Amino acid sequence: MRIHHQPYHTIWLSEAHKVQVIDQRLLPHRFEVKQLADTSSVVTAIADMVVRGAPLIGVTAAFGMYLASKEALQNNDPKAYLQLAAQQLRSARPTAVNLAWAVDQLESILMKLPPASWPERALELAEQLKADDIGYSEAMGENGLPLIEALTQQHPNRAINILTHCNAGWLATIDWGTATAPIYKAHRKGIPVHVWVDETRPRNQGASLTAFELGQEGVPHTVIADNTGGHLMQHGMVDLVIVGTDRTTATGDVANKIGTYLKALAAFDNQVPFYVAAPSSSIDFQLQDGLSEIPIETRDANEVKWIQGWDGDRLTKVLLTPEDSPAVNYGFDVTPARLVTGLITERGICTASEAGLRGLFPERFPND
Amino acid sequence: MRIHHQPYHTIWLSEAHKVQVIDQRLLPHRFEVKQLADTSSVVTAIADMVVRGAPLIGVTAAFGMYLASKEALQNNDPKAYLQLAAQQLRSARPTAVNLAWAVDQLESILMKLPPASWPERALELAEQLKADDIGYSEAMGENGLPLIEALTQQHPNRAINILTHCNAGWLATIDWGTATAPIYKAHRKGIPVHVWVDETRPRNQGASLTAFELGQEGVPHTVIADNTGGHLMQHGMVDLVIVGTDRTTATGDVANKIGTYLKALAAFDNQVPFYVAAPSSSIDFQLQDGLSEIPIETRDANEVKWIQGWDGDRLTKVLLTPEDSPAVNYGFDVTPARLVTGLITERGICTASEAGLRGLFPERFPND
Repeated sequence: MRIHHQPYHTIWLSEAHKVQVIDQRLLPHRFEVKQLADTSSVVTAIADMVVRGAPLIGVTAAFGMYLASKEALQNNDPKAYLQLAAQQLRSARPTAVNLAWAVDQLESILMKLPPASWPERALELAEQLKADDIGYSEAMGENGLPLIEALTQQHPNRAINILTHCNAGWLATIDWGTATAPIYKAHRKGIPVHVWVDETRPRNQGASLTAFELGQEGVPHTVIADNTGGHLMQHGMVDLVIVGTDRTTATGDVANKIGTYLKALAAFDNQVPFYVAAPSSSIDFQLQDGLSEIPIETRDANEVKWIQGWDGDRLTKVLLTPEDSPAVNYGFDVTPARLVTGLITERGICTASEAGLRGLFPERFPND
Repeated sequence: MRIHHQPYHTIWLSEAHKVQVIDQRLLPHRFEVKQLADTSSVVTAIADMVVRGAPLIGVTAAFGMYLASKEALQNNDPKAYLQLAAQQLRSARPTAVNLAWAVDQLESILMKLPPASWPERALELAEQLKADDIGYSEAMGENGLPLIEALTQQHPNRAINILTHCNAGWLATIDWGTATAPIYKAHRKGIPVHVWVDETRPRNQGASLTAFELGQEGVPHTVIADNTGGHLMQHGMVDLVIVGTDRTTATGDVANKIGTYLKALAAFDNQVPFYVAAPSSSIDFQLQDGLSEIPIETRDANEVKWIQGWDGDRLTKVLLTPEDSPAVNYGFDVTPARLVTGLITERGICTASEAGLRGLFPERFPND
């Protein structure tokens, strides 16, 4: 998608085979590309949220494995080095399943190969994951588009109002996004859409990233405080909710950015359809119960107490609370499947249930 | 209650009969007393939220009527002047019923009296409203205290976790607060309580005011993003929700700070009791349906796009969104009575229903 009218991906390799990413901590105020030269830079970039979004951190970690495989060759014990690097990458953040999934996949393939062949193969695999992710996003876009088209039948004379939480946009993936993919597809097809952008405290990925990328693509949108969605739904101002997910269970429970559950409750209470864009890379087919089984990241309380913004001259942080008031910062919550109208996957839309997922991904379920 | 170990009210008259208020826009970072010298200063102080909180703006407007009654005597047409001042005060903010209620009350009494007697009578009435408000808060504190005491029976070995939204604390009233009154009563009685403080975007009254006043009183608390309450309730980390109200209908629908409805949904979904501290001054006995009848204030979108905080040296505002992204800022939402466990009033606790309110306030309902 576009930034300043130029098409970008969120991650790419330079000619010198260095990993390049957009430093998402600086958006929307500054656009800077950051080079990740080694594995530990990749780990830090994921942990500090230079890159974020479940699909993107999965692909970034895959490129991290590529860097690690090169570093391993300089080491006396390449296998031990690669395993340690894999472990560090996996631990960079706990909630999104894509991260562990991507690292595991590369690790298990590489471990069966002679170390000398690792870099070439790792790069191939990382590029494949990246291409797959773009394919997933495009397919989710096509699969979700009919939901919006159907709403235009009901409301032919106005834009369709779609609420989203956090950034499940192209900046969270490689291109197109997950939740935003159907929106971009509709917009490019000339269907009038308007997006309510939850600002998504504490890190404000909605206000900073989703608003930015929608603006760059020319999609009409309005930023709202996270508190606002319920009121909008009560007054018929939301036709559809689409969010992303960091990990969805085999039964359809959805872990996503903290606050998603509250919007799902409001959507349910007001009969607004609530969809989750869930590429199979974000589905944890091992898990049955989201609330008890998905680990929820606790981040630094200072992310709640302080906020970053543009003071006119520079990016700066300001304190919002009394200096000595404690705060707590849970990164995600779990929306029970009963509140989810459907999952938008790369293979189609299904109910948020084991039966629904089994219908689309039979090979991921053991035979009973 | 206390600020820097000194007892304060939120509004008082100086020896020179000037109205003094705490400038709440500067808290928690700076404590400053602001003098309101004339009616238009009072109107601006209410509109700009130097003072805020339904009970406090009612009492402040009453003191505004006192200033207006003195100014009226300098005017050729004192009655016209006072009526205009009343109109300006009433229009300063639309949602809280206390404001119109207080102004109407003074206006109707003064209009029957000779102008020369207005200042003395207006001051008497304003001081009476102030004293009444303190009495209401204390009574709500005593009436709500048994809810917390009952929870200590269930959980004898830990603090009782109470979630609140916005600031319905003593800074929103004259003393004690509405939602916080039972909490302060419990704390002073030695009952261990811990308060989850919703930061309450966009104006962050929770993070700035509630956290500040709880800290000054030594009440254990933790600031959370507004997105967090649902997750806490899902995990049994909230025993009780108490919020305030800006206007409650005769049927028990509750207008309160935007986002309250989302917390009520989560409380309902997790069987957490959800109480609203509603002094009779905030109950609009004329209204039947909160969603259609209560006017919801729309404030400046810049309150969403920009945020104020302390940069280490000074209070400053920073931009959170792309400069050209639109935002919208609804100040309140309406929680339907069906989600409210009970109303804590100065006369006792009742169900959020006409029957409940009629039981406590029979004189406010016409005979059928």
